[in-house]
Amino acid sequence: MTEAYNDTPTADTMETLQSNSYNIYFNDALAEVVRFVENGHYSRFFVLTDENTAKHCLPLLREKLGDNDNYDLIEINAGEESKDIDFCIGVWKMLIDFGADRKSLLINLGGGVVSDLGGFAASTFKRGIDFVHVPTTLLSQVDASVGGKTGIDIDSIKNIIGTFTQPKAVFIEYDFLKTLPARQILSGTAEMLKHGLICDADYWNLLKESDLSQPTAEMVYRSVAIKNQVVLEDPHEKNIRKSLNFGHTIGHAVETYSLVHDEDSLSHGEAIAIGMICEAYLAYKKTGLSLDELNEITDVLTSLYPFYQLREEMNDELLEIMKKDKKNQNGNINCTLLNKIGEFNIDNICTTEELIESLQYYASLN
Amino acid sequence: MTEAYNDTPTADTMETLQSNSYNIYFNDALAEVVRFVENGHYSRFFVLTDENTAKHCLPLLREKLGDNDNYDLIEINAGEESKDIDFCIGVWKMLIDFGADRKSLLINLGGGVVSDLGGFAASTFKRGIDFVHVPTTLLSQVDASVGGKTGIDIDSIKNIIGTFTQPKAVFIEYDFLKTLPARQILSGTAEMLKHGLICDADYWNLLKESDLSQPTAEMVYRSVAIKNQVVLEDPHEKNIRKSLNFGHTIGHAVETYSLVHDEDSLSHGEAIAIGMICEAYLAYKKTGLSLDELNEITDVLTSLYPFYQLREEMNDELLEIMKKDKKNQNGNINCTLLNKIGEFNIDNICTTEELIESLQYYASLN
Repeated sequence: MTEAYNDTPTADTMETLQSNSYNIYFNDALAEVVRFVENGHYSRFFVLTDENTAKHCLPLLREKLGDNDNYDLIEINAGEESKDIDFCIGVWKMLIDFGADRKSLLINLGGGVVSDLGGFAASTFKRGIDFVHVPTTLLSQVDASVGGKTGIDIDSIKNIIGTFTQPKAVFIEYDFLKTLPARQILSGTAEMLKHGLICDADYWNLLKESDLSQPTAEMVYRSVAIKNQVVLEDPHEKNIRKSLNFGHTIGHAVETYSLVHDEDSLSHGEAIAIGMICEAYLAYKKTGLSLDELNEITDVLTSLYPFYQLREEMNDELLEIMKKDKKNQNGNINCTLLNKIGEFNIDNICTTEELIESLQYYASLN
Repeated sequence: MTEAYNDTPTADTMETLQSNSYNIYFNDALAEVVRFVENGHYSRFFVLTDENTAKHCLPLLREKLGDNDNYDLIEINAGEESKDIDFCIGVWKMLIDFGADRKSLLINLGGGVVSDLGGFAASTFKRGIDFVHVPTTLLSQVDASVGGKTGIDIDSIKNIIGTFTQPKAVFIEYDFLKTLPARQILSGTAEMLKHGLICDADYWNLLKESDLSQPTAEMVYRSVAIKNQVVLEDPHEKNIRKSLNFGHTIGHAVETYSLVHDEDSLSHGEAIAIGMICEAYLAYKKTGLSLDELNEITDVLTSLYPFYQLREEMNDELLEIMKKDKKNQNGNINCTLLNKIGEFNIDNICTTEELIESLQYYASLN
């Protein structure tokens, strides 16, 4: 399974990656957006952004668009709350009001919220219109923009509703990352570290010795290449794509909990880092990860991410959220674990006791 | 184009039809449902019905299920209003509350509202769970259940949100039709007549000379076979599937208008019959339908369906609805017309003046 990933490009030149039905552009990405719009013969085009990207990123795109600056703008609030079905209805209604037809294009300019929500809204509007992603955060560049998952939330259950629909193209503009605050960069770094942990020990070793407050363009490229290769082999998550869920069963639960309860809630990466530590512990208990490797993973992640207090009285709610996880079957909670660093192990049913023990392991690190 | 349809089975025996990835069962259909559930190894199954089918049809299914009667029931109100996004959210929340997972099955037992809504809810729940259709009305048997279109409404705009997702099977139980009121039968007959008009003159001639208050099982089979053949050739409505839109540009507008304004609103078939008369008039004006054939179509349809008063002051609103039609491009209103009975002609842009003239033609028939 894991050998396929030894071929991961090291990216002397960051060539355009081919996904199943679309390209992922890296070089002069915004100029490629303009070329795509010009060549696409769309009747109309729309840009979905949040307030932050409208301020920091949209001007760069508009500059490139030049005379083609004739889009309608749909702006949402920044933050996971905008992925609620109510905001999706708002996007649909704006597309209706703007007169979007089946030959319209939606450009999702923003982070994962924009691409998940925009992808879902587009994939279902009039039974599907074209959309592309222009991810503006590190997290969305290395994770959300590639793979064709769209999703929205209901009652704070993340991505409970969605489709598998491929974008028509993805444009990765490294320069956007230069404007991001450190905390947002680190949110994306967690997914990059995951890519190393699940299928590329060399990449993990490179990352753990690098300054991850500003990953290089080559690192971004390498992570996208890994994710692209995984989803190409298994677009609908029947088997190896589940590798990408490492850290996410517990991580998603902690993220949802924090979203509901904390004023300054955890970023996705901060939550996934906690999830990876807990699930590395489960891997140590269940699938052969060595104690040394558990300690190494724990050390790297705790040095990068702030400690979050997991209290015993949170367990019931965390487990309740895990039980609603899409990855479960027959009511069993399912985790992707590791055999060792660089080798994943999917479909591990974990008991309530095991999960609580892993949460206690994290809590004991303080 | 039309020659392919000369092979339409005349159905001495109504063999199971093969669609692109699923079967359409006719013989002992409810027993086939039970077999499907048993062989599918689903973790759970759910039945979506409306209050009417829960009363009249569900008992027949339960009887066949016998010991497998362990489903959760999701019941909606009968009527198009239940296709609003708010009711779809209700279905999603019930699936969440019942603990549906990715290996769950949704059985849509009902008419077009149930199959359109249930198909959409299932195709997007956790990025897609399996669903099957057990259509209980003539209209849903010959139209909605085959072809993989799912859809819900926003602000009374019909099917503005939806997906192309194939069911895992369709089960057509002719006996359900015996319990239907005459008006519901005639609602389905309109689509059957359309099948003849667009691609099978023999079938049109058979239908127009038959007692359409109770179509035979063979007629139902023949209509399903025609629709199946069309959607097999063009699942995403890029070309010949547009033939099925004959009567629907104007018909949908009249249906939506009536839904909003009339206490006892038009049935789908009643509205589509009006649309077919208007669009036959447009075909006479634009695509070579002869005056004799226009008169024949008008006579058959006006003898079957009650006259509906189209007043001039309704035109603006009807045109406004047509402008929001999914089939439009670049703001132009698009109709499927006929060259002659049995031969369709797609992608005809119609001007406001032409559309109004066709509405006046219908209004003058009183």
